[in-house]
Amino acid sequence: MLKRVLIANRGEIALRILRACRELDIETVAVYSQADEEAIHVQLATHSVRIGPPRAADSYLNQDAILTVAKGTGCDGIHPGYGFLSENADFADACAAAGVTFIGPSGDSIRKAGSKSAARDIMRAAGVPVTPGSEGVVRDLAAAQAAAEAIGYPVLLKASAGGGGRGIRRCESAAELPAAYEAARAEARACFGDDEMYLEKLIQNPRHIEFQILADRHGNIVHLGDRDCSIQRRNQKLIEEAPARCLTPELRARMGEAAVRAARAVGYEGAGTVEFLLDADMEHFYFMEMNTRIQVEHGITELVTGVDLVRQQLRIASGLALDMGEVTLQGHALECRINAEDPAADFRPCPGKVGFLHFPGGPGVRVDSHLYTGYTLPPYYDSLAAKLMVHAPTRLEAIRKMRRCLEEFALDGFRTNAELSYQILYHPTFVRGGCTTAFLDQCLPQLLDFSRHLPDQEET
Amino acid sequence: MLKRVLIANRGEIALRILRACRELDIETVAVYSQADEEAIHVQLATHSVRIGPPRAADSYLNQDAILTVAKGTGCDGIHPGYGFLSENADFADACAAAGVTFIGPSGDSIRKAGSKSAARDIMRAAGVPVTPGSEGVVRDLAAAQAAAEAIGYPVLLKASAGGGGRGIRRCESAAELPAAYEAARAEARACFGDDEMYLEKLIQNPRHIEFQILADRHGNIVHLGDRDCSIQRRNQKLIEEAPARCLTPELRARMGEAAVRAARAVGYEGAGTVEFLLDADMEHFYFMEMNTRIQVEHGITELVTGVDLVRQQLRIASGLALDMGEVTLQGHALECRINAEDPAADFRPCPGKVGFLHFPGGPGVRVDSHLYTGYTLPPYYDSLAAKLMVHAPTRLEAIRKMRRCLEEFALDGFRTNAELSYQILYHPTFVRGGCTTAFLDQCLPQLLDFSRHLPDQEET
Repeated sequence: MLKRVLIANRGEIALRILRACRELDIETVAVYSQADEEAIHVQLATHSVRIGPPRAADSYLNQDAILTVAKGTGCDGIHPGYGFLSENADFADACAAAGVTFIGPSGDSIRKAGSKSAARDIMRAAGVPVTPGSEGVVRDLAAAQAAAEAIGYPVLLKASAGGGGRGIRRCESAAELPAAYEAARAEARACFGDDEMYLEKLIQNPRHIEFQILADRHGNIVHLGDRDCSIQRRNQKLIEEAPARCLTPELRARMGEAAVRAARAVGYEGAGTVEFLLDADMEHFYFMEMNTRIQVEHGITELVTGVDLVRQQLRIASGLALDMGEVTLQGHALECRINAEDPAADFRPCPGKVGFLHFPGGPGVRVDSHLYTGYTLPPYYDSLAAKLMVHAPTRLEAIRKMRRCLEEFALDGFRTNAELSYQILYHPTFVRGGCTTAFLDQCLPQLLDFSRHLPDQEET
Repeated sequence: MLKRVLIANRGEIALRILRACRELDIETVAVYSQADEEAIHVQLATHSVRIGPPRAADSYLNQDAILTVAKGTGCDGIHPGYGFLSENADFADACAAAGVTFIGPSGDSIRKAGSKSAARDIMRAAGVPVTPGSEGVVRDLAAAQAAAEAIGYPVLLKASAGGGGRGIRRCESAAELPAAYEAARAEARACFGDDEMYLEKLIQNPRHIEFQILADRHGNIVHLGDRDCSIQRRNQKLIEEAPARCLTPELRARMGEAAVRAARAVGYEGAGTVEFLLDADMEHFYFMEMNTRIQVEHGITELVTGVDLVRQQLRIASGLALDMGEVTLQGHALECRINAEDPAADFRPCPGKVGFLHFPGGPGVRVDSHLYTGYTLPPYYDSLAAKLMVHAPTRLEAIRKMRRCLEEFALDGFRTNAELSYQILYHPTFVRGGCTTAFLDQCLPQLLDFSRHLPDQEET
């Protein structure tokens, strides 16, 4: 087993990793920016080292500084969390070269899954369904136009190096393509330093269904069931649930097998997620992307399976085999992401200092958060403040429990999206399990009218 | 289903009851003393009514005031929680007479289980093992002496109306009996207004094993497994676990059947607990008492069974049948009670104002607490500040998780027993599952020496 792990992240996920390490008697080294001196995980880690100023490029993305600390403090592992360096193949390679275990897949696997256009080719070859689209990247506008004509509008232009919803443009017709092509390339260049584009048919009103994967060095690759993450705004997930209500056992089995094939095709090791779009026909599904890291929403899979995914990551990275026996799904779990943002002001981030704070508790409730009264959420990073999770025997009980949790949750100091999530939990489309990825954008004006009490349609 | 429930309690259990009500869409009425105006559950209840000054006799024990509020606010149920009026048969009768459902068993059942000497007779008749002891109450000192000679020293003198460890004296020999008899009677008179005594053989170095019972009006009586609550100081439980490590499946089945017989013998309805002493031979067990209410430590049973016990109480009181299917025990759960008390000063209660506060979280962790930063724990009631609970696949993983939770738990403002619990979690006797009810008193000096790091013997 690893002896000392550097946590190359911050916020709630840094605390999550620290907890898993502590329970395995693994020592921890926290690296932190100047903005995170007051963070809980910095206080709790075995050792803490400040590595730079607040700007992520100078701290949490500073590969040299992080590797220097890892070697200087005798770490034998680095956990990258999510975001930051977690899907950086070069960093995974650099860790390997420095003799420190990167807790995640190899640089090669990250590259295969990370290049969105190459991943499509790999998946097609492995028998995993992909959306109709261009053969590899489109070299120029003319190639994009030809590919779009061949597959038919509407289409999506996507950055090969993309992720997190950046570098994507939707095109309804040939007339829109030139401007969209330039805009997507510019965004991809700015975000990823790489403007290679490819093209896919737009699947209309799909659901976002993803499968949790675990793979060890001993050839075991399993999935731990699915999550429905269709409640999104601009590709940012807001509410997730496990399992997806819309899957029949037969479809779940087919998608799960495809997810395992996808992971095998890139030589996967560790915890990862295979994301699919499920068509409105509830029959066809298409590989969207593979995230080669722990996800924000991993906790709801932990609730329905009883498996500690970060613990398994640490075991796998230590060369041990998976040790969780037969995986069964029990009950239903929901997560609401509480972000420091103002939905009424176009979701502008609004971090600040935490005043009164009360998190919900009781049976079937889990809260992952780094907040405490007096803590100042810094403005430099993402706006995630807390993850409220619930687990109950049935979906309806889980919904009611989450409503109760949101009523009980109290935070003074800055605005959050908690009230918006509460409205969604009463929306008839959500209650009957009918949300596609279009739901939130379509219903946002109605949902943001907090003066209007949405009818409770849960009994229909 | 009940429509509106009055919560006749305070602290964490009031919040626990409120949560269960809310998830069933039952409205809540909080009654509170002047000392609890700032309590979370008072803020969250549908309606809140101040019923009196801090002194419990004038507020939480004021039956007339509570029933007046219940009727005035249209409540159809009263949940008494634990302590206060929860085992008061007259109050249960008064609720029935007022047409308000007492969420618990009938006054008659409470009386049968509540009179400790009568309960012994009932259990003996029902085939539930009881410790050798006097036939019913001992009328005077001479009768006590005769009974003690017949069963053999050491013996325990116990108050018929007793509970919570009050009105009990241990006698090693005939010489000690007269003084012990008078002292126990005086204490019983002061605590319960009733000085009837009975006598039992002292079981030396027993374990405290209890079974959780649920019984509905439709004839269903089931147990939900066992808890080991042997870590006690003066009969106050400190750390509890479920299931008990020391029971073989065969012994668990035998004790569980006896517990169900015990509940049936008093015509039980609702949630209750049958407490046994398990002899050091790990074979003989003896009925100790039946608690006719929800217990402080009910949460660990919820963790290993997945059953929400307070929800079931509310369903039963509404006349509905149990709806939890086959009960299976999964994994291992631990609870540490965090009390506002100073173990170094003979456990003197030391309530105060909460400063910095951080509760542990993450997978398999549950915290039930009414504390928040800025809250002042009033000095008038019990010193329970929080219940830290963990759930993990194995006992050793649960122990490690609880150690991690106690390391992470931070509370400024007053002293607690958290560090003592942490020491216990490293004690070899605890780690190997060898604690009897004598453990804490015997090892207290060693455990309180926080400068001495106890060796981690968990691998032995």
